[in-house]
Amino acid sequence: MQHIQSLQSLINELCKLPGIGVKTAQRLAYFILKKSDQNIPALVQSLNDIQANVKLCNKCFDFTEQKQICDTCTNHKRNAQNICVVEDPSGIQKIESAGVYNGLYHVLHGSLSPLDGIGVEDLKIAELFKRIEESLVTELPITEIIFALDPDLEGDTSILYISKQLSNYKNIKITQLAHGVPVGGDIEYINYRTLAKALENRIEVS
Amino acid sequence: MQHIQSLQSLINELCKLPGIGVKTAQRLAYFILKKSDQNIPALVQSLNDIQANVKLCNKCFDFTEQKQICDTCTNHKRNAQNICVVEDPSGIQKIESAGVYNGLYHVLHGSLSPLDGIGVEDLKIAELFKRIEESLVTELPITEIIFALDPDLEGDTSILYISKQLSNYKNIKITQLAHGVPVGGDIEYINYRTLAKALENRIEVS
Repeated sequence: MQHIQSLQSLINELCKLPGIGVKTAQRLAYFILKKSDQNIPALVQSLNDIQANVKLCNKCFDFTEQKQICDTCTNHKRNAQNICVVEDPSGIQKIESAGVYNGLYHVLHGSLSPLDGIGVEDLKIAELFKRIEESLVTELPITEIIFALDPDLEGDTSILYISKQLSNYKNIKITQLAHGVPVGGDIEYINYRTLAKALENRIEVS
Repeated sequence: MQHIQSLQSLINELCKLPGIGVKTAQRLAYFILKKSDQNIPALVQSLNDIQANVKLCNKCFDFTEQKQICDTCTNHKRNAQNICVVEDPSGIQKIESAGVYNGLYHVLHGSLSPLDGIGVEDLKIAELFKRIEESLVTELPITEIIFALDPDLEGDTSILYISKQLSNYKNIKITQLAHGVPVGGDIEYINYRTLAKALENRIEVS
């Protein structure tokens, strides 16, 4: 414990961040304090800015800056008939970096996890169905929902739950990211479940 | 790069912290943003508090809260005749945690490093000599200076420089932390320089 109260408070706050333990928090706090005149105003400013400016897009629920609808959703060059469903806004960044997807997104803001008390009403699932319903009466109805959730129990549960309800829409194709051997990976170090999936879904060498 | 400017600014600020790379900064920024109503006000408050309240003690240059002289320096139960010289305030925490030292401290706020442009005037060296001079006319003159600097080139240079000047004071003993085998360590993994020092300074088994 620190004898300086303000320092201890900052350490406590930093400890709440993911992957930051007490020792790292102490190191960060001392660093911040050492050049406090330079570090603190800039950090405080950026924290205040982010709180004031960043909102959720009313359509896809990605983060957006001072707008009701984000740039991706209003971009007419993108294919509005495909929706890629992700858990978090960071997932969108990741998929965009792959550079092969040109559709829209929908952020669930989590995945179904009954053990952690995260149910259907905690996620943006109803909003996804509302989007689908609304699109059906337009010229560009949604034709494909692509799940890009984490390949874990919660992700699989969410896919199962949503896709079951989606099966009511006969014209919507439901897909999910392929499981398989990572490009550049080493067969030696791949777990048997991934390898089983990769074998199951093997593709013909053209 | 993030398309959301405020998010990118926060990521840039977080990247300036020690040991935080771009990926970690992104993860932290997304975490902060996810629960921004809870996380941001608390973090901003603690940053503002620390900037407003934490100052340097006018005597030992440790951090102190809203005081001219810190609690350690004004604690009459401590031995004011021994001064332990450390590089940073975090060093004081470390030495206090050992629980065997009852003297006072002096924080240099760095160590001599000509290559990085850190010279004598950038450190609290003059202030240390001022403290010594002032103590000599009191009932409790300083009798020992203990160097607890990092065991690297910069630390050794600083010890050399300061101790040379200290040698003018005939009644002041100059010591430094012992080098040797870490308690609980494994001889196998200790570097040869440490082992050489440990052999050189070997102690009689009582």
